[in-house]
Amino acid sequence: MTLHLAVDAGGTSTRCVVVDETGGCLGYGRAASGNPISAGPALAARSVAEAAADALRQAGSAGGGAAGVASVLLAMAGASALSSTELFAAELAPLGVRAPVAFAPDLLATFCSGTWRADGYALVAGTGATAVRVEGGEVARAADGLGWLLGDDGSGFWIGERVARAAAADLDGRGPRTALTAAVLAALGLAPDGAQVQGRAAVLQRLVETVYALRPVELSRFARLAFQAAGDPVADAIVRGAADALVRTLETVTDPAVEGPVVLGGGTLAQHDALVDRIAATRGSEGGAAEVHVVDEGTVGAAVVALRHASVTVDGPVFERIARTLDALR
Amino acid sequence: MTLHLAVDAGGTSTRCVVVDETGGCLGYGRAASGNPISAGPALAARSVAEAAADALRQAGSAGGGAAGVASVLLAMAGASALSSTELFAAELAPLGVRAPVAFAPDLLATFCSGTWRADGYALVAGTGATAVRVEGGEVARAADGLGWLLGDDGSGFWIGERVARAAAADLDGRGPRTALTAAVLAALGLAPDGAQVQGRAAVLQRLVETVYALRPVELSRFARLAFQAAGDPVADAIVRGAADALVRTLETVTDPAVEGPVVLGGGTLAQHDALVDRIAATRGSEGGAAEVHVVDEGTVGAAVVALRHASVTVDGPVFERIARTLDALR
Repeated sequence: MTLHLAVDAGGTSTRCVVVDETGGCLGYGRAASGNPISAGPALAARSVAEAAADALRQAGSAGGGAAGVASVLLAMAGASALSSTELFAAELAPLGVRAPVAFAPDLLATFCSGTWRADGYALVAGTGATAVRVEGGEVARAADGLGWLLGDDGSGFWIGERVARAAAADLDGRGPRTALTAAVLAALGLAPDGAQVQGRAAVLQRLVETVYALRPVELSRFARLAFQAAGDPVADAIVRGAADALVRTLETVTDPAVEGPVVLGGGTLAQHDALVDRIAATRGSEGGAAEVHVVDEGTVGAAVVALRHASVTVDGPVFERIARTLDALR
Repeated sequence: MTLHLAVDAGGTSTRCVVVDETGGCLGYGRAASGNPISAGPALAARSVAEAAADALRQAGSAGGGAAGVASVLLAMAGASALSSTELFAAELAPLGVRAPVAFAPDLLATFCSGTWRADGYALVAGTGATAVRVEGGEVARAADGLGWLLGDDGSGFWIGERVARAAAADLDGRGPRTALTAAVLAALGLAPDGAQVQGRAAVLQRLVETVYALRPVELSRFARLAFQAAGDPVADAIVRGAADALVRTLETVTDPAVEGPVVLGGGTLAQHDALVDRIAATRGSEGGAAEVHVVDEGTVGAAVVALRHASVTVDGPVFERIARTLDALR
């Protein structure tokens, strides 16, 4: 029984699964961020090895253990641009894993976590936002994912920045009153005391100092406030704007000749039905009911891609077996 | 003849003038940034002393030189929050200046550079954007100036970020074609080579890498491209949006009971008639022709504020004398 190691390396955590060629998952492990962009290549490689060690330990001697691993598949964002497979292979070697290591785009793992089909679309919105069209099991077209300063339209950062700016504009008297203001101040542990400086609430200056002490991407923490304030016109406009932006990004990668399911992932989408419903409705109106799947991470898909790299056919039954046996391990 | 030192300390340069109580300017000096926010308090104090030394050298023994200086006025943004007058007094003492040091808001110096009147409005848009209402020679109300992440609507950063995002969206296929794309690539020394990666122009990835190597506020360098591309619908929409935002900020500080001229300053306004014309038109339509002045820095106003702090009445003739004699020194 040949084994494969499939890794979904995200900005927050790394997940590794040991899968056999029938789609049976034998071991599962987690570690800290394994993404070279957020963690740096060296730390990323150590996280991958740590998650792999746990997964191999759980798999035990089945299939020959580490020595039975025929390939390693690392699904991660921007990996090929920032690091080499050698770095990861070197960290895995002490575990007894001597198999070749290959990268795959994280968006492909997201797509393959929602469907076994070879064609379709994935849209991921977490702190960032990216869409891809998948054809024949490969990414044929990507859109956005350009980061908080140049793109990521509709992402957690995009929403959170607008929430923070709306609160600041309200306190400044430039923008409409909004429930977001009290929510942002509470989230930062600030309380308005009624004091005024140059005709403005004194708490505005404390808000400015607190926010500029954050890294810009941390403004994504305010995104949830927009959903919690549903019914507030300012909050609703921000959420509508995010949905419109995400739909536009998805439309950018859409080719009418390529039909297939839409897989939605990332915390901003997975945790907020308001966005998912709106995107699903847009796809549906284009030509009948759309097949939409929401996934919360990409480990299943990493296993699917790992098996396909090894020329194993992943059809519906194999896909279901991966999902079911992985679920049982977690 | 009693002398006063008036300093306009900006993020780019520091300007100092020695002025007597008739409004006669006797010496002028320049140095690097004297703003505690951009240069740090210690460097800011040294820049102020350097500009003061030049100004005093040019003034020579008139009025008793450094020993004849009765007060020092430092016009700068956010000074009182970030540093103390003692730091500046300590750097000026070796020059023989033993006078008390006081701060004034930079926006007040901008206002007083355009008019001798005690009531009115100032709107400054450079990298940032701020408006104030002046009453009785003091700032009664301020709006915006909250920095690139939380505010500065309509500023150079605000425009430049939109220019960069429009170029990225164009290359990504998410946004409309725009002349800004070629302009941004040229400004960064990048050339599209026709290559594609995942269905997108390969130069997009180089644009992303180049822009993220900048400090965010440096995106303000792209603002001029929006004005240069006049006629391009995307560029025109950005400029219109900036004008609308600046008008809104100015309206936020406007009190119908307080009439007076509008003084416009900062590079984004001073260098672009399109913005000035639009703001002037908005004020005019509210009740007859508005008195609008455009100033390029705040040294005249710093001198006005310095004299008023010393209880010297600055009327039209004194104001004209300050402006005329300062011009002759530069």
